[in-house]
Amino acid sequence: MAPTASAAAGEEQQAVGLAARDSSGHLSPFAISRRSTGDDDVAIKILFCGICHSDLHCIKNEWKHSIYPLVPGHEIAGVVTEVGKNVTRFKAGDRVGVGCMVNSCRSCESCNNGLENHCPEVVFTYNSVDKDGAVTYGGYSSMVVVHERFVVMFPEAMPLDAGAPLLCAGITVYTPMKYHGLNAPGKHVGVLGLGGLGHVAVKFARAFGMKVTVISSSPGKKREALERLGADAFVVSSSAEEMEAARSTMDGVINTVSANTPMAPYLALLKPNGKMILVGLPENPLEVPPFSLVQGNRTLAGSNIGGMADTQEMIELAAKHGVTADIEVIGADYVNTAMERLAKADVRYRFVIDVGNTLHAAAAE
Amino acid sequence: MAPTASAAAGEEQQAVGLAARDSSGHLSPFAISRRSTGDDDVAIKILFCGICHSDLHCIKNEWKHSIYPLVPGHEIAGVVTEVGKNVTRFKAGDRVGVGCMVNSCRSCESCNNGLENHCPEVVFTYNSVDKDGAVTYGGYSSMVVVHERFVVMFPEAMPLDAGAPLLCAGITVYTPMKYHGLNAPGKHVGVLGLGGLGHVAVKFARAFGMKVTVISSSPGKKREALERLGADAFVVSSSAEEMEAARSTMDGVINTVSANTPMAPYLALLKPNGKMILVGLPENPLEVPPFSLVQGNRTLAGSNIGGMADTQEMIELAAKHGVTADIEVIGADYVNTAMERLAKADVRYRFVIDVGNTLHAAAAE
Repeated sequence: MAPTASAAAGEEQQAVGLAARDSSGHLSPFAISRRSTGDDDVAIKILFCGICHSDLHCIKNEWKHSIYPLVPGHEIAGVVTEVGKNVTRFKAGDRVGVGCMVNSCRSCESCNNGLENHCPEVVFTYNSVDKDGAVTYGGYSSMVVVHERFVVMFPEAMPLDAGAPLLCAGITVYTPMKYHGLNAPGKHVGVLGLGGLGHVAVKFARAFGMKVTVISSSPGKKREALERLGADAFVVSSSAEEMEAARSTMDGVINTVSANTPMAPYLALLKPNGKMILVGLPENPLEVPPFSLVQGNRTLAGSNIGGMADTQEMIELAAKHGVTADIEVIGADYVNTAMERLAKADVRYRFVIDVGNTLHAAAAE
Repeated sequence: MAPTASAAAGEEQQAVGLAARDSSGHLSPFAISRRSTGDDDVAIKILFCGICHSDLHCIKNEWKHSIYPLVPGHEIAGVVTEVGKNVTRFKAGDRVGVGCMVNSCRSCESCNNGLENHCPEVVFTYNSVDKDGAVTYGGYSSMVVVHERFVVMFPEAMPLDAGAPLLCAGITVYTPMKYHGLNAPGKHVGVLGLGGLGHVAVKFARAFGMKVTVISSSPGKKREALERLGADAFVVSSSAEEMEAARSTMDGVINTVSANTPMAPYLALLKPNGKMILVGLPENPLEVPPFSLVQGNRTLAGSNIGGMADTQEMIELAAKHGVTADIEVIGADYVNTAMERLAKADVRYRFVIDVGNTLHAAAAE
């Protein structure tokens, strides 16, 4: 069991992390000072942290806003070691998670509606500047201190390792399905791209009782999609015949692709009033022919993670239906190799770092 | 009063129209044979027909699917002269209108849901091929025969001349406001572009009790927008300051612009979860930066006219609230000049041809 943290008021807590120091993206041990556990804070010993594709973008500064040293990780699962005196939802020993956010203004319209992800002052779990001026360091680290509002309780049935990726990948695909009505039995949803986000989308779609079709450029994923993930159909995006046969058949498409691809062929898969929800972030502007939206009243919408109440709801629903991420657990010393493999999409479907057993304070520089 | 049609069964009815013979777009008199009034048909003496920007695109073959001779016009208002024996909703003498559609399969899911505009076999009012193989000729003509389902009853309070443009411009902006929740008192809608569609959108927004801001590239329209149309605010799109001040303030934007403009600055006007609805049809693909949709869960949707039930609902609501188009009534002999002026956006806001008084059979070639 994790030792209980015992920071005196105002005393910083020492942790060890893995940081990129520059845009080479190489990760190496890094000593971190976490703030003392405040009245509203939860201190968490991190046991597992998923590797999200965003982590790779950020360590290499591909989105041009990286702050070094940069400690990635926003799919955090662990155990509570200490709570502040105002904390009511958590106690030491609780199995918890932290996703993409660790703070927000907590008083704007978005925050009051439980949509902290839309707060103009949202603070992300890493590579962001918190209200106290500190740069945030993520979950590739031994412990973290987080305001209670941004901590998620893990249901008993949810494993910490395979559940960790749900805090980003899961909420990212769950939210648009919930808010765009793509969670109804009998509806037909397409999942474009079968990776970290896509495979979880397939699982949620099945949990909702929907018909789900995977659309992928990789014919090699067909068997996997149909037999192991239980998709109802598989369309190879490069096959004009298969795309034509699927035309106007889908109520929605969850587009998880981060590369720039033409939108029109995929918008054509939608029924009238159908919705494509963009959850990936291609680098360049999308090219969208106006007719492909106007004809049939089609929608192209974006969706960015989700609020804290939705995240809690998502993980409880996932636990109920046995939805977890398919993972490959790795040690901390494998993280740079994992990043190289991730860049080649050589993982099915999420790397998760066994932080608890493999990231040791002794390694910090 | 119009003479009553008296076609014997199977006998074609002679009409006169204005047709373009080629992509020069020049309109000249043209003799038309309309089908006899079938059992489900309504024969209409056309009194007024609005000039839509689509008409201009089509007579010049700018959308590359024009069939010549081409008789434009899908904002038709007139008086019923004869009805078929199965017709229940109309009788001779009724004031009626015909919009963009004159037929559909009438049995698919879309048709059964009153969304004939999404029927794969929809037949448009002109430049389309009807089920009997006849090319459809539009409302720049003395009379038309239309299946009852595609005829709209004009409320008593709705004038035929200023009401005619509502059958295209009105339903085009009303439908997205209805289906995207942009019809609620207190919500804030932006209207991008103040032309034939935009000025009607402003009027509907006011009828719904919304705050409405006109966004336009023409500072000269400010006074018009605020003082005459009653918009609450006006933003000059070329002013970085005004655009910045309006950032994240709108629940929705009705985008009526047919020219290719960057989308990102206008998407930035939306609140989180805000929606931009595209009702214009720019020629080239839109450039949409993924971040501009994903950040704040923003939506870009298309909307294409509306179903027949919605069209009837729209015109009744318009009559109740005194919503009509601002028009310039012209004679049939002015139509080519009107097209030239329309190409320069030199009309506030819709030309309407006084068909009843100025388009005479004697002129037909």
